[in-house]
Amino acid sequence: MSVANAIESRRSCHLFDPEQALDDAVIARLATLASRAPSAYNCQNWRFIAVRSASGKAALAAAAYGQRKVSDAAVTFIICGTLPPQHGLAAALQPAVLRGDVSAALAASWVSQASDTFHDQPQLQREEAIRSASLAAMTLLLAAEGEGLASCPLSGFDAAAVRQAFALPPEQLPVLLVSIGHAASGNAPQKPRKALSELLQLA
Amino acid sequence: MSVANAIESRRSCHLFDPEQALDDAVIARLATLASRAPSAYNCQNWRFIAVRSASGKAALAAAAYGQRKVSDAAVTFIICGTLPPQHGLAAALQPAVLRGDVSAALAASWVSQASDTFHDQPQLQREEAIRSASLAAMTLLLAAEGEGLASCPLSGFDAAAVRQAFALPPEQLPVLLVSIGHAASGNAPQKPRKALSELLQLA
Repeated sequence: MSVANAIESRRSCHLFDPEQALDDAVIARLATLASRAPSAYNCQNWRFIAVRSASGKAALAAAAYGQRKVSDAAVTFIICGTLPPQHGLAAALQPAVLRGDVSAALAASWVSQASDTFHDQPQLQREEAIRSASLAAMTLLLAAEGEGLASCPLSGFDAAAVRQAFALPPEQLPVLLVSIGHAASGNAPQKPRKALSELLQLA
Repeated sequence: MSVANAIESRRSCHLFDPEQALDDAVIARLATLASRAPSAYNCQNWRFIAVRSASGKAALAAAAYGQRKVSDAAVTFIICGTLPPQHGLAAALQPAVLRGDVSAALAASWVSQASDTFHDQPQLQREEAIRSASLAAMTLLLAAEGEGLASCPLSGFDAAAVRQAFALPPEQLPVLLVSIGHAASGNAPQKPRKALSELLQLA
């Protein structure tokens, strides 16, 4: 499936087949693809919890106002942004330095810049967590489409309840849920979008 | 190009060929694909300014700390989230209602829920703008990759300066810049990512 086809055919699936699970290997492959999303300085300031057990789904559905998608989909990823974004950045850049793609001096300057930007800036940290996690979530949605799977992003959940149910530490901010599985019948196609003239300005 | 290939091959391009422009038709196609991203209630709370004129690029580069990518890439999109997200939602849902995909009652309930959620909640509005704009930005990045174009997201810019240079109204929040064009030689491949064991938890 081409990228454009995946973008055009992806729809927010509301009806999943509860009988069809996904192998953990497929879940790992989807998460690996999601981790290829970009992030500022390559901070990779995200973490994914793939909820696919019966007990996990029940806990997550309860924290998501009982939405059936969470119970029925094979897996629902909790996409977290992590705070502060630059935590672990030096180590995360080391493979690029060792490969010679980024000089040690440049990597050090990125760590320094990221620290200067985000240190003691909780609002900026939070916004960066939302941005990075959303980039990863969109990559995950399209990766699923490319694998022939149905998906749905959910922003309607009680973040505090999700935090409690999955013992998320304070540095993990749940930003979006992404349900993935096999579609049941009866889903509507992708909803129409606004006309381009309402969205795009040339400058 | 398959979706997985696009996700794996996309890299943040730092060196663009300044001699190669993009037709406005290509820019429109990329923006149309970006608009296929999901948003809560299908709010489509985003707006894109495609900066491709010499004067526009000069103004945007100045607001982005002089980054060469903005000057050299054929186009840089200013990806804005819009506030409040539910503004225009009833009209935006009308095509889905007319097509019979969403009942009029369901559409009305979404408008009501979105209004209840976001009314007088500037922080939530801002976070939703960042989330939605980031989902659109990631879709744009992968759409560009699928078209054989190079791209780079930029979060390092002076939002107030961008707002002033492009006369953005208060309801448009610039969230990310996305430069797109043809790569020059000398770009590094996609930077390595953390091991999956650092990112993924199964539950």
